[in-house]
Amino acid sequence: MAADLSDGSSSLSVLETVLYAHDLEAAEDFYGGVLGLKTVAALAGRHVFYRCGNQMLLIFNPSATRQPPAGGALPVPPHGMEGQGHVCFRASTDEISAWRAKLESLGIEIEADFEWPRGGRSIYFRDPAGNCVEFAEPRIWGLS
Amino acid sequence: MAADLSDGSSSLSVLETVLYAHDLEAAEDFYGGVLGLKTVAALAGRHVFYRCGNQMLLIFNPSATRQPPAGGALPVPPHGMEGQGHVCFRASTDEISAWRAKLESLGIEIEADFEWPRGGRSIYFRDPAGNCVEFAEPRIWGLS
Repeated sequence: MAADLSDGSSSLSVLETVLYAHDLEAAEDFYGGVLGLKTVAALAGRHVFYRCGNQMLLIFNPSATRQPPAGGALPVPPHGMEGQGHVCFRASTDEISAWRAKLESLGIEIEADFEWPRGGRSIYFRDPAGNCVEFAEPRIWGLS
Repeated sequence: MAADLSDGSSSLSVLETVLYAHDLEAAEDFYGGVLGLKTVAALAGRHVFYRCGNQMLLIFNPSATRQPPAGGALPVPPHGMEGQGHVCFRASTDEISAWRAKLESLGIEIEADFEWPRGGRSIYFRDPAGNCVEFAEPRIWGLS
């Protein structure tokens, strides 16, 4: 029996969130070493994959993933972006304060730290590739 | 009392997954009209925001978000990428079959459809901006 999508589409959930970085070793030092994510898989020069709650955070070198799949490889479509991306992780305000202290102790600049008009705090900083990383209280979106 | 990050970092979870699109109206036709996500907020020419399960999917026009915040605005740091990004949504194999049928009925090409060597199916297609969108069974990552 075919699945019925008529009610299900609003319950879509993200399985893979993607960032790009040309220097994957620096990305690993940051996402593994600083943020403490556990590496699930890594292929030098192409990717490093992290489990992040009930989903994955995938960091790709766009120079590698823009190439079409080699003959005999799985037909994974090419993709890749350049510039400064953005991701946000959920945190309580106490956790945000603790992250701020930890990041600053490591010499990582906090680029912004503010309260949203309807409540909830965010802090922003950069990963080594220049991606804009945020910790925010989920209530800024009415989420828990 | 400061939050203790020593045990908590491996429990990080994503609050905001980001994609970029210059044509946000086309993006809304796709993510709202085709995938059925509910719009939480939109600002013409800058962004459209969707709730997606217990998190957010944010689609930004990088030409707008690369600009530094205006005087008096919240100090949200600039970011923006160009190219073809990637996102994956979780789905059962029955849901993947139903999505494939729905997408093809709308003239959206399925770029790849295969089983991973360790089990689990993925299909890939493009959003109007060229981003690589995937539906995959969470078991490809050992997730449920």
